[in-house]
Amino acid sequence: MKIYLAGPDVFLPDAIEIGRRKAAICAFYGLVGLYPLDNEIDLTAPDASRQIFASNEAMMDEAAAIIANLTPFRGAGADPGTVYELGYMAGRGKFCLAYSNDPAVYADRVRRFADVTSADGRLVDAQGLTVEDFGLVDNLMMIHAVELRGGPLVTPATMPADVWHDLAAFEACVRMAAARVSPR
Amino acid sequence: MKIYLAGPDVFLPDAIEIGRRKAAICAFYGLVGLYPLDNEIDLTAPDASRQIFASNEAMMDEAAAIIANLTPFRGAGADPGTVYELGYMAGRGKFCLAYSNDPAVYADRVRRFADVTSADGRLVDAQGLTVEDFGLVDNLMMIHAVELRGGPLVTPATMPADVWHDLAAFEACVRMAAARVSPR
Repeated sequence: MKIYLAGPDVFLPDAIEIGRRKAAICAFYGLVGLYPLDNEIDLTAPDASRQIFASNEAMMDEAAAIIANLTPFRGAGADPGTVYELGYMAGRGKFCLAYSNDPAVYADRVRRFADVTSADGRLVDAQGLTVEDFGLVDNLMMIHAVELRGGPLVTPATMPADVWHDLAAFEACVRMAAARVSPR
Repeated sequence: MKIYLAGPDVFLPDAIEIGRRKAAICAFYGLVGLYPLDNEIDLTAPDASRQIFASNEAMMDEAAAIIANLTPFRGAGADPGTVYELGYMAGRGKFCLAYSNDPAVYADRVRRFADVTSADGRLVDAQGLTVEDFGLVDNLMMIHAVELRGGPLVTPATMPADVWHDLAAFEACVRMAAARVSPR
């Protein structure tokens, strides 16, 4: 089974190395990990971003499954680029798995960045916008999408010291994918 | 044509009213806007979040198009829940339109929240994570998805005073949808 490896991992200083580690874990379980940076793009080309889009989409279309890294990125929620890809794969009817290395409930995580208060029975941030309060790790659309189309979101019991390089939750997703391919 | 109206608008204090305004603009152009809060959900039910997911997905499956509000939400990027829905509709092959009421380039917007520096020829934030620098308003996956599957992301020339209630960019998207239904 080919699995598209989505995540803000591509923004890490050692993005290529983390992709190699993820692909090696997939291979250990008899699966093939497809990582966006496997596509060779000339970043100086005027249409570089369009080329990246097209090759990521082609890679997603080639894959039967996605493992999305929903670890919070620049704020309380997941990386929108990764979430777009999770939605795309869900729309294509693919097998959807995801993990987050921060197990905190979304509302608690928003509190790290902003004042959250109660108003008319709902939680609101400083702008008066509702803070989702269903006891889930992130927006309900992603959480229930993976639950229904793959398996429950994987989170560690406690946040690892290095959320960007700890691959235990990722490996749990790979095992879930492998179990689907060869159920015991 | 039925259009799914995605956006963090559902988190506004006047979420229902803004949905009515959006649906009225759609109706003016002969289109039908489907707004998530049209679904009546008992928010005290233990599975309320799953019910919301299921009714949003059913609404998306009923719609032929999406207009996604990608105005930055709690940070530099779009609301992940909305982005999931945009990805889902793209994966289903639907007509995809989007707008953002903040016309700033993504890298400039990240600078409002964090120090951005140059390292090895790329922009990085304080955590050392690459800041996408293609001159686009948000992550390239969303921007090119709408460009290829609907029309270019709509942004105002300058950010309106009230980014959550100004519907000029939204209306421009509705006009694009109407032009697709009845091309002149």
